[in-house]
Amino acid sequence: VQTHTVQIGGKTILYHFNASIHAPEFLNDHRNKVLLTDTNVAQHLPERLRRMPCIAIPAGEKSKQQATADHIIGQMLEMGADKETLLVGIGGGVVTDLAGYVASIYMRGIAFGLVPTTLLAMVDAAIGGKNGVDLGQYKNLAGTIYQPDFIHFDYALTDTLPLDEWESGFAEIIKHACIADATLFAELQSKQLSDFRENKEALHALVKRNVLIKTSIVAEDEQGTGKRHLLNFGHTLGHPIELLCNLPHGHAVSIGMMLAAGISEEINGFSSAEKSALKTLLEKYGLPVSVDTDTKKLTELAIKDKKKSGDAIRFVLLRSIGDADVIKIPMQQLSDLIKTICC
Amino acid sequence: VQTHTVQIGGKTILYHFNASIHAPEFLNDHRNKVLLTDTNVAQHLPERLRRMPCIAIPAGEKSKQQATADHIIGQMLEMGADKETLLVGIGGGVVTDLAGYVASIYMRGIAFGLVPTTLLAMVDAAIGGKNGVDLGQYKNLAGTIYQPDFIHFDYALTDTLPLDEWESGFAEIIKHACIADATLFAELQSKQLSDFRENKEALHALVKRNVLIKTSIVAEDEQGTGKRHLLNFGHTLGHPIELLCNLPHGHAVSIGMMLAAGISEEINGFSSAEKSALKTLLEKYGLPVSVDTDTKKLTELAIKDKKKSGDAIRFVLLRSIGDADVIKIPMQQLSDLIKTICC
Repeated sequence: VQTHTVQIGGKTILYHFNASIHAPEFLNDHRNKVLLTDTNVAQHLPERLRRMPCIAIPAGEKSKQQATADHIIGQMLEMGADKETLLVGIGGGVVTDLAGYVASIYMRGIAFGLVPTTLLAMVDAAIGGKNGVDLGQYKNLAGTIYQPDFIHFDYALTDTLPLDEWESGFAEIIKHACIADATLFAELQSKQLSDFRENKEALHALVKRNVLIKTSIVAEDEQGTGKRHLLNFGHTLGHPIELLCNLPHGHAVSIGMMLAAGISEEINGFSSAEKSALKTLLEKYGLPVSVDTDTKKLTELAIKDKKKSGDAIRFVLLRSIGDADVIKIPMQQLSDLIKTICC
Repeated sequence: VQTHTVQIGGKTILYHFNASIHAPEFLNDHRNKVLLTDTNVAQHLPERLRRMPCIAIPAGEKSKQQATADHIIGQMLEMGADKETLLVGIGGGVVTDLAGYVASIYMRGIAFGLVPTTLLAMVDAAIGGKNGVDLGQYKNLAGTIYQPDFIHFDYALTDTLPLDEWESGFAEIIKHACIADATLFAELQSKQLSDFRENKEALHALVKRNVLIKTSIVAEDEQGTGKRHLLNFGHTLGHPIELLCNLPHGHAVSIGMMLAAGISEEINGFSSAEKSALKTLLEKYGLPVSVDTDTKKLTELAIKDKKKSGDAIRFVLLRSIGDADVIKIPMQQLSDLIKTICC
């Protein structure tokens, strides 16, 4: 196990890379614990973990709602969880988001730790303390920013991950490369998905690199008033696409990144050659780069999304690969730009 | 208007004493605002405030539930509230708690301000950033600690306050005297409720003094891991009494303080003379000092309450008036002590 200590907003967080949930010492601290997982992951947990107080929510995005948080809170109360209890979320992004959210509001805040089980959760969802639940069609409308005590990265958990989950994770990895790491972009160009899927050493290096990219951005701007916005690259339109087209998160973000790249080319001096390189890279990792959708609905939903600020939307645009800007785009201009890009 | 700036947990908060919601400049900053109030208070708001986007929840403790928070969040979304919107809670403790809670989770946190309309909310509920909703019988089971931008104190709002609301507020004022301010205790002994009810100057001095007592304790320990526990004096048993006997908060806390004083006499060297003085003072301000209830149920509920930590309950005991300690009392001993005190 390789332990890495980081600081976000005055909170010390331990990252345990190369951890194993099958190791006898796993989760062996002395605190009372409640595990939170989903019904899929629950079946694969070691016997020892399954004997702990455990709440398993139905797997899938549908669980990311306040009603699920209410249910978890009720269960924790029945289990006798108190201010000293540690909540441990073991699962993908839905579970890690709910674990953080519930931990932040249960008895006005208890400690929690995370064990991300998907590539997407390892490199993105579990990192940075943002959590939340959706309200109907609005993603993360309620939530908090609340940091965990620790995150365990067990790469063996990816062994059973279906291909589309890998692809979805790579969308966020490519996003990190686009906004902050041109060298990573080049490395991804020289390799392919199976190089990481079949080699735990390569996967570890990739996960750690991405975890530290996101962590360093969040550590600079935990509350998201500045630099953290960069992490929304591909998401301002990706979120509405996810909803309208019922796509996995990463696949929708991939399309969102291509739209943002198009807008970047129009108004931010992003080169056509780099836009093509991004398209090629996304396709190489199995990700979609366009979708047939109602651009009017897309624009409406984007405006309703939480990045709205008055009459303009904060939009992340690329200048070049590895270099991004946050630009306020007036609603009307955005609507026109989307029409231009999509036709 | 007398403005006082305080700092809690790195956040700057403005207290505006002697503010008036009827003054034309009231709430005249340039931010988009949503008002949160209850159906009783809504009727008394100046026309100008009623024309703002306003959510009025049903008056009463029953509204302090997650379902109400969900409703408010849905309404805010329909009103187009975004990250830049200011939520202003105008009301008693239920409204100020919900305003803080919703502000802390809406889009992962927006700014809010408070206008407490009851004495209890002015001296206690609105101060310190603790908020929350009840889950069934468990008070504040979900909540956060989240500070407002400002609090306006308009003493004219107390003109329509019924007597039992005044009494309930004085329970928290006497609590502050007990844990931190023997001089205030003596002053309260030398006066009576009507001295404050009928004289806005005296009321202002009293409110300001209590606001600053609570603020200074919270500023030392925002997260409630140490000194802030002192503010729970009378509440560890007061909360279950409130529930079991269906009493107003302050009246239940008054009985809770007398029980805590009894336990303080048993195990913390608190004098019988001071216990009598506390009883006399509470009665002078119209507060009950005992109640006929099932001590077994009382103990059970207290244990289920969120102050539980492992096998012991953190209990605030007096050493003398103005001087309190936080003592861990094992469950069994607490149960025995309650039996002793109540018989």
